[in-house]
Amino acid sequence: MTYKTPQNLYPVTVNEERIAKNIQNLAQFGMNKGGGIDRSLGSKADIQAREWLKKLWETELQATVAVDPAANLWAECAGKETLKPIVLGSHHDAVANGGKYDGAVGVLLATEVVQSLKEAGYKLRHPIKIVSFSAEEPNPYNISTLGSRLITGVLDSKQVGEATHAYTHEKLSETLKRLGGDVANIANHLLTDHDVGAFLECHIEQGRRLLDNGLSLAVVSTITGIYREEITIYGEANHAGTTVMENRHDALLAGAELSLAVEQAVIKQRRSDVVGTVGHFEIYPNSANIIPGLAHLTLEMRVSNDQVLKELLVQLADKFAEIENKRQIIIKRRIILDQKAVPMDPMIRETLQQSIKATGDSYLDLPSMAGHDSVHMVPIAKTGMLFVPSLEGKSHCPEEETRIEDIVKAGNVLIRTVIALDKELD
Amino acid sequence: MTYKTPQNLYPVTVNEERIAKNIQNLAQFGMNKGGGIDRSLGSKADIQAREWLKKLWETELQATVAVDPAANLWAECAGKETLKPIVLGSHHDAVANGGKYDGAVGVLLATEVVQSLKEAGYKLRHPIKIVSFSAEEPNPYNISTLGSRLITGVLDSKQVGEATHAYTHEKLSETLKRLGGDVANIANHLLTDHDVGAFLECHIEQGRRLLDNGLSLAVVSTITGIYREEITIYGEANHAGTTVMENRHDALLAGAELSLAVEQAVIKQRRSDVVGTVGHFEIYPNSANIIPGLAHLTLEMRVSNDQVLKELLVQLADKFAEIENKRQIIIKRRIILDQKAVPMDPMIRETLQQSIKATGDSYLDLPSMAGHDSVHMVPIAKTGMLFVPSLEGKSHCPEEETRIEDIVKAGNVLIRTVIALDKELD
Repeated sequence: MTYKTPQNLYPVTVNEERIAKNIQNLAQFGMNKGGGIDRSLGSKADIQAREWLKKLWETELQATVAVDPAANLWAECAGKETLKPIVLGSHHDAVANGGKYDGAVGVLLATEVVQSLKEAGYKLRHPIKIVSFSAEEPNPYNISTLGSRLITGVLDSKQVGEATHAYTHEKLSETLKRLGGDVANIANHLLTDHDVGAFLECHIEQGRRLLDNGLSLAVVSTITGIYREEITIYGEANHAGTTVMENRHDALLAGAELSLAVEQAVIKQRRSDVVGTVGHFEIYPNSANIIPGLAHLTLEMRVSNDQVLKELLVQLADKFAEIENKRQIIIKRRIILDQKAVPMDPMIRETLQQSIKATGDSYLDLPSMAGHDSVHMVPIAKTGMLFVPSLEGKSHCPEEETRIEDIVKAGNVLIRTVIALDKELD
Repeated sequence: MTYKTPQNLYPVTVNEERIAKNIQNLAQFGMNKGGGIDRSLGSKADIQAREWLKKLWETELQATVAVDPAANLWAECAGKETLKPIVLGSHHDAVANGGKYDGAVGVLLATEVVQSLKEAGYKLRHPIKIVSFSAEEPNPYNISTLGSRLITGVLDSKQVGEATHAYTHEKLSETLKRLGGDVANIANHLLTDHDVGAFLECHIEQGRRLLDNGLSLAVVSTITGIYREEITIYGEANHAGTTVMENRHDALLAGAELSLAVEQAVIKQRRSDVVGTVGHFEIYPNSANIIPGLAHLTLEMRVSNDQVLKELLVQLADKFAEIENKRQIIIKRRIILDQKAVPMDPMIRETLQQSIKATGDSYLDLPSMAGHDSVHMVPIAKTGMLFVPSLEGKSHCPEEETRIEDIVKAGNVLIRTVIALDKELD
């Protein structure tokens, strides 16, 4: 506890009632009858949420509000000096029938931190900005972390040009235009390391590691790498009655063994930062009386460590060859994603850890097993993430919940972190 | 070889050239560009095939042609006495992109047998009939063995009334009407044991047991029982990144274990007359980054022996409980079909066996692992089946083939069998 700082040195704390109220207020935009949130990019709920946020920032923070070409929302409060801004934020969109906390907590806690500092009369040296990114979640345009990838130049504006809404068929470029964006003009407005001094994102954990450890806060060490393969298994469709067992080349059974092999290999690692999933699985012709001749599946592995991924791939290659040989089927693999793990900035992690200790609280160092906008801020700014617990580990569903006391703790840690960074960064 | 009869006692043999030509002629109705046959109930090809068959029977056999209320086609040649007719036949429809031999061999060989006897001037005591049943194969009305089930009263005319074509939406009752049937009137025209003395069906094996044994003919002992369950696995959908392996309840992995358990249990029986298949398998939400929460599958087992099926079900119940327990998922099972095995008539089997031996040939006694129209003739007539080999065991595909020499052998055996039955039956 050497780092503990007396509370009275930091009289600035967040307002529990206000942050709770703001979370409920934002949740009304897109809330369906079952209590889930439908707030995908360009929807009426998205537009309502955007208008509400902009108004909140203008009226409560007297901030300068802007919409960038990726339709990300920004609020800026000037600092005492001309320095690269400290940016806090997350996203305000939601998966279909999602929850009230994913993304929203990060945006509203950023707002609360700025408002609390302002109320306390605490003047920062750095300008402080709040960002709410467009379309972080999987969405009907089939492009997630859209806003952060587009504004940091990771995503090509051409890719955006080709995307359309799966149901309304609206062009993504048109949707962004409706929201104040301008894809055609993005090349002139990309964020660079001149624009952001530090980026802080608070997010719900979406797992149950904090919960299982009885803790309120985690400092994210790394954002997991995500590796995906599209796998096709070529067996032989045949009559399910007249084809004796030893003459079969059943693509479903090969896929079953493959999926179980993935689970076994991952469990054998005995690491909580390695998971493997076959989430997509289809067989053909998919008829009760025909032996499956073809299977399409998607394998996903999330690993924070390249060496572990390599090991897993070697083990799986052996196992898949064994299955091919035993069943006389063919397994074709195609890598469709190989996103490396992204470490958070050591200085920001240290500052977050010290700030937590200073409040007398404990924390976990956790890799994030989900992707976040922060991944794309890493190349241009010192970036760090703070996790708050998800009750029962649930997220992306109406039952998603984070206790207000945990959110308050995170807010107070963010205030300390911002003040510390404001002193340390130039 | 005590049963061997000198060839010259049976001078009547089939005409190889003619039967080969007829198979090619029938195959032209519905042949697609890839050489597959598309000839489902009510299609243009079905109508063409029906007209061609009727004309063939009228002109070549001088038979009395009739269409029953199930739109089954019948040809009748009178006998010397007033006895219950001996009936030979099969079906002339085909699965989508099917082959030239499935069903067609049985109908055309029946035709050839009658024509050969007629040409040889051999007068039977019994009337002899040829039947070509409607819609034996899986079809867009989702009712297979339609004609044989309908005319024997197994299928309710109400069930037919509700069926419609999956693509054209034509009512099945309308389709049958177009083909000369009349579902409304079926109750007055059901086949009974007064109408048929014996039924003989020659069919392709659709497996490779004859081929693997280097033989041309099999006498069917039993038509397999078919048992089907619809199985639903309730797991828990969750984030494929943030849910650690030990907290998962993956419905796909449970389904994978279940499918492999079925295969293992069936293989352990070491019987060629037992097969088990999971041919239908779907998971939800079926997304690369979500742990499958739900799986729907269909389990089919084909067994000729009730005791074996019981044993299998006990073993599977234990195994499924183990999976439920280990993965903390729920497996719901619903029996959707429990069709018992149907033995062929012992006297007909014996007559077929003797006829084969009399030609100097050998045969296998085989259970049929596919269902056939014969199943539904068993309650009303002494019924027997003869199998001819399927090259490479293939059926229901353009590559389906049976050698003409094997078909000829079957035809000659049928002639001997008909003559023997004509003597023995009253």
